[in-house]
Amino acid sequence: MFDLQGALADISVQLDEAMHELLPNPGNVSNKVISIASRETSDDVTECHSGENKVVDAMRYSALSGGKRLRPFLTVECAGLFGVSPQAAMTTAAAIEFIHTYSLIHDDLPAMDNDDFRRGQPSCHKKFGEAAAILAGDGLLTFAFEVLAHRKVHADASVRCELIRTIAKAAGVFGMVGGQMMDLDAEHKAMEAEEIIRLQRLKTGEMFAVSCEAGAILGKAPEQMRNSLRRYAHDMGLAFQITDDLLDVEGTREKTGKTVGKDQTAGKATLVAVLGVERAREQSKTLAEQAKQHLACFDKKANTLRVLADYVVSRRS
Amino acid sequence: MFDLQGALADISVQLDEAMHELLPNPGNVSNKVISIASRETSDDVTECHSGENKVVDAMRYSALSGGKRLRPFLTVECAGLFGVSPQAAMTTAAAIEFIHTYSLIHDDLPAMDNDDFRRGQPSCHKKFGEAAAILAGDGLLTFAFEVLAHRKVHADASVRCELIRTIAKAAGVFGMVGGQMMDLDAEHKAMEAEEIIRLQRLKTGEMFAVSCEAGAILGKAPEQMRNSLRRYAHDMGLAFQITDDLLDVEGTREKTGKTVGKDQTAGKATLVAVLGVERAREQSKTLAEQAKQHLACFDKKANTLRVLADYVVSRRS
Repeated sequence: MFDLQGALADISVQLDEAMHELLPNPGNVSNKVISIASRETSDDVTECHSGENKVVDAMRYSALSGGKRLRPFLTVECAGLFGVSPQAAMTTAAAIEFIHTYSLIHDDLPAMDNDDFRRGQPSCHKKFGEAAAILAGDGLLTFAFEVLAHRKVHADASVRCELIRTIAKAAGVFGMVGGQMMDLDAEHKAMEAEEIIRLQRLKTGEMFAVSCEAGAILGKAPEQMRNSLRRYAHDMGLAFQITDDLLDVEGTREKTGKTVGKDQTAGKATLVAVLGVERAREQSKTLAEQAKQHLACFDKKANTLRVLADYVVSRRS
Repeated sequence: MFDLQGALADISVQLDEAMHELLPNPGNVSNKVISIASRETSDDVTECHSGENKVVDAMRYSALSGGKRLRPFLTVECAGLFGVSPQAAMTTAAAIEFIHTYSLIHDDLPAMDNDDFRRGQPSCHKKFGEAAAILAGDGLLTFAFEVLAHRKVHADASVRCELIRTIAKAAGVFGMVGGQMMDLDAEHKAMEAEEIIRLQRLKTGEMFAVSCEAGAILGKAPEQMRNSLRRYAHDMGLAFQITDDLLDVEGTREKTGKTVGKDQTAGKATLVAVLGVERAREQSKTLAEQAKQHLACFDKKANTLRVLADYVVSRRS
């Protein structure tokens, strides 16, 4: 039987290495100043204290703090369907994970979801303060695009531009950012199931979709396959989100690594609240099956993606 | 005599038009949901309330609220030195202004500089709330890269990637984001003049520099000219910043459109505080002269940039 947990763990290790290499390092921060008198060449420098180390520390703290690494896994798996080089796939995956990490840092802020824990440790603003957390999020988001524009992502610059546009759209106001705003507005508000689905599609679905799509873009895959992977991701992503909401109702902080019962306390409209636990669980299973059907055009190379669809609805954390 | 104010006003109008066109419009937000039953095609949609309108409104409110538009002006002027098409220059300028706007929104947040006014009107979080302001900043930053990756910026994708990398670096942890962290750390802390110069170089200098450099990148200019424009921008930017600090000491809110006397209240280390008003003013004039010297390799087409260097140190708001 295929060991999905092992495969996820492998990707996590490789991703951590890639992110560790890519991210700015406090040791590498150039603690240099240029005097007024001799600012014409950048060689005339002297050492001084450097405040941006704090942002770099905060960026690394949050990015390298573990997590399921589902999005990078999707990118690497989908890139593998089209024979993309592992380095290109992993660099792209790291950029996507930087964007995911920034969103978690900002979502945890007091003005947003106000969460003190993330991945089993203090959230970024609890550890470094609010200002550093806001800036660390900004820094990670900015850095993701710096990475994506780099040659090592793909030799063809038009592929890199396509990646950047597609990822920016998914992360932006018609994707993750818009979804987070809807989510905050959803507190103490009655919502229909369809509205909640749209919310989830924006908040998490688009980033899941682009994580898969990125592999297809890197591999210059035909439009039809790219769309199949998007649909797989959207169904799988919604199944994942419903499971998250179920764990929020039924889980414990020890298992999930974050505060539980928050949705109910905040009066948030979730599919679990609207459909009830049993119907929500059934729905997540239906979605996982539907997700797998979108993979019909792929051969057994997509088996891991099929196993993953089953995993996201059966997981306990 | 050359009418710089008129030229700045012209660019402002054109920039507003470009940003208005580029930015998401609440009317264009797709208020659509996809039902669980028929999620396989994106045609099966129904209308519903859409929460992301609020983020779009906040993005437009801050981006289209006026300002000096110095950075876009620099991009357009520098692009003009190399015969770049006005549309390409203006689209790039708009993207840079989106990044500048996001930084103002986040800098004004209570956890950062805590400023209630910006450009003579309530700052973004005072108008839309903190959560929407954080997300509007995130949305603008993300959107800037979506715009920069678009074909209309340049037909050559490698030029677009070079722009994205250079702008992301200037906006990131070794540029604007790092400078803002240093600035927050600088409150109630003694700093030497050279440390303050490094802080300003990161906080505002790198974005000024990349605003000029973007014109050179679009025009595939020789490395030497690109560097000359960077140096011009750094000297001019520092002169600009010293003038800002002088206005904070001597100006009024009516004239500057923002809260004044804040640096002193916050105990911030500025060159004005370290050097005193008179020496700081002299220094700003020296920097403006130095900035103009970097333009020696350009003919009279760079005259506007020369006039601008004089303007930034003589302005009253």
